[in-house]
Amino acid sequence: MRTAAYTGNHAIEISETEASAPGHGEVQIAVAYTGLCGTDLHILHGNMDARVTTPLTFGHEMSGTISAVGDGVTEWKTGDHVTVMPLEWDGTCPACIAGSSHICQNLVFVGIDSPGSLQERWNVSADLLVAVPDDLSLENAALAEPVAVAVHDVRRSELKAGDHVVVLGGGPIGVLIASVARSEGAIVAVSEPEPQRREQIARLGFETIDPREVDAAEWVTAWTDGAGADVVFEVSGAPAAVLAATGLAKVRGTIVVVAIHPTPREIDLQRVFWRELRILGARVYQRTDFERAIELLRDGTIPVDEVISKIVPLDQISDGVSDLENGRALKVLVEIGGAA
Amino acid sequence: MRTAAYTGNHAIEISETEASAPGHGEVQIAVAYTGLCGTDLHILHGNMDARVTTPLTFGHEMSGTISAVGDGVTEWKTGDHVTVMPLEWDGTCPACIAGSSHICQNLVFVGIDSPGSLQERWNVSADLLVAVPDDLSLENAALAEPVAVAVHDVRRSELKAGDHVVVLGGGPIGVLIASVARSEGAIVAVSEPEPQRREQIARLGFETIDPREVDAAEWVTAWTDGAGADVVFEVSGAPAAVLAATGLAKVRGTIVVVAIHPTPREIDLQRVFWRELRILGARVYQRTDFERAIELLRDGTIPVDEVISKIVPLDQISDGVSDLENGRALKVLVEIGGAA
Repeated sequence: MRTAAYTGNHAIEISETEASAPGHGEVQIAVAYTGLCGTDLHILHGNMDARVTTPLTFGHEMSGTISAVGDGVTEWKTGDHVTVMPLEWDGTCPACIAGSSHICQNLVFVGIDSPGSLQERWNVSADLLVAVPDDLSLENAALAEPVAVAVHDVRRSELKAGDHVVVLGGGPIGVLIASVARSEGAIVAVSEPEPQRREQIARLGFETIDPREVDAAEWVTAWTDGAGADVVFEVSGAPAAVLAATGLAKVRGTIVVVAIHPTPREIDLQRVFWRELRILGARVYQRTDFERAIELLRDGTIPVDEVISKIVPLDQISDGVSDLENGRALKVLVEIGGAA
Repeated sequence: MRTAAYTGNHAIEISETEASAPGHGEVQIAVAYTGLCGTDLHILHGNMDARVTTPLTFGHEMSGTISAVGDGVTEWKTGDHVTVMPLEWDGTCPACIAGSSHICQNLVFVGIDSPGSLQERWNVSADLLVAVPDDLSLENAALAEPVAVAVHDVRRSELKAGDHVVVLGGGPIGVLIASVARSEGAIVAVSEPEPQRREQIARLGFETIDPREVDAAEWVTAWTDGAGADVVFEVSGAPAAVLAATGLAKVRGTIVVVAIHPTPREIDLQRVFWRELRILGARVYQRTDFERAIELLRDGTIPVDEVISKIVPLDQISDGVSDLENGRALKVLVEIGGAA
């Protein structure tokens, strides 16, 4: 079978290896599609070399068909369509005991801390499987993981129908958050400096803000009749967006920190104090988010045709990476083609 | 009657004026004590010159006795002991309509935006009065306002009995927050660099941390068996404390921003994201907090003897200010002596 691995120094190597049988409690998945995400780019750019072990078969957004079932697995059978929730927790740390196992203090993120789905036959613990119903294509099901991120972010924000929501950053997660928030009844504006992305977001029916041309705080104040936004999602990772975010939120409004900020960022704490704002970190997802993601992909809430910019075969994965690096694509899927 | 006013340029002027009768809906209070707080120092140092109008009779922590009752006031009578919740909201802004009138978008803070209690006879709206019961001395009742701040901060944190709580900054508000949190069943540590304050806090039975000598994150991790603190109160105003705060909180822990941070501060948003932290601004109080403060002053929860460092007569107010500026005092009361 073919496997793609990060081998260090910006390089991806595709190699032939022998598929192994699934172990106890595992299934073997014939991977159909693997999506590439921002974290994968961070890995390829060497930013996560201190964390990952090379060669690393990366990939954690996927869909596929069970091709073999290991001992002790009774709830799944060959031919089942599945996706994987790529989190392994220890179940014993204080966070797990307190009920937050999805952010276990010793979390193993599959595809980063252990081998991922950029391989034709992938053995994973049956505990991580999430069923893909027959009426959801494997292509669209490959979006389950990023959609689950958006579902988790929106759930964490506790937004309500009728709320005014601002999403800072119109990349794939920003568009998914906007879509999920709208499905909950929110009125959504997306701030995105890149004109083509902004056009695409406008086509999806969202209000758009060009933060380089417009004073976002004034715009949001007018948009909300002087109140400010109920919820602001910080998805951009940009220092300027963090500094501006507090100026957009209403009294007792919520700012959800979704993006990765590798170094400390300046925040206007005077405004946090003055308006009694709430800033919430939101990371990955819980099982309920994954299951809701499958529903939203199934019922047409997620604009999959706009989000999936391109599908490339495994041997052209580097082209897909380039499209993401150049900002030409929102989401690129790699077709692994491991039909069961 | 005598009045103390900030006249600009670090100066306090004491003058004789004629007391006026209370207007419709007002009472006249014979002020007994007025506490000096950090905000008063900011006013005196000129930091709030853009906000205040001089001469400003400042002072917003007080106790006194009703000396006259204006037209339309039926619930109060001469001789009643009272304190004042010094907030006037417009009742019409989006924050008020949403139920957060205590942080009204057009809030008038009495004693800053309008005349305060450093005068022998003070006319205030009866809507602002809070009753002081007979078994609470006027001296101790003058602490109601800062205690209400602490009650509000603790309530906003949603801490529970048994929680591990870290208070960053052992000034008067830090000590009051620690006391209120302990009364709710929390286990409390206070981080304070100043040795004399730390000794005083230790005498009150709290764990103490010297942030200049100890790695606070390591200390808190050991103290909480690897979990981290449930709640961290940022009361210091120090940039280093803000940066460190995120390292002290457990997964899904809460950081309450109590201190004033006049310029943006660096925050470790990676940690906010990674542990799904919650940062909450907390400002002033609601009526329920004021009423609770009175109870806590009455039942001995608040260590009033440690908190009130000094009582000075009105004509020695400058000495009290100096003691606060030099960090020699926690709380200084000015005895106005306006016996009814």
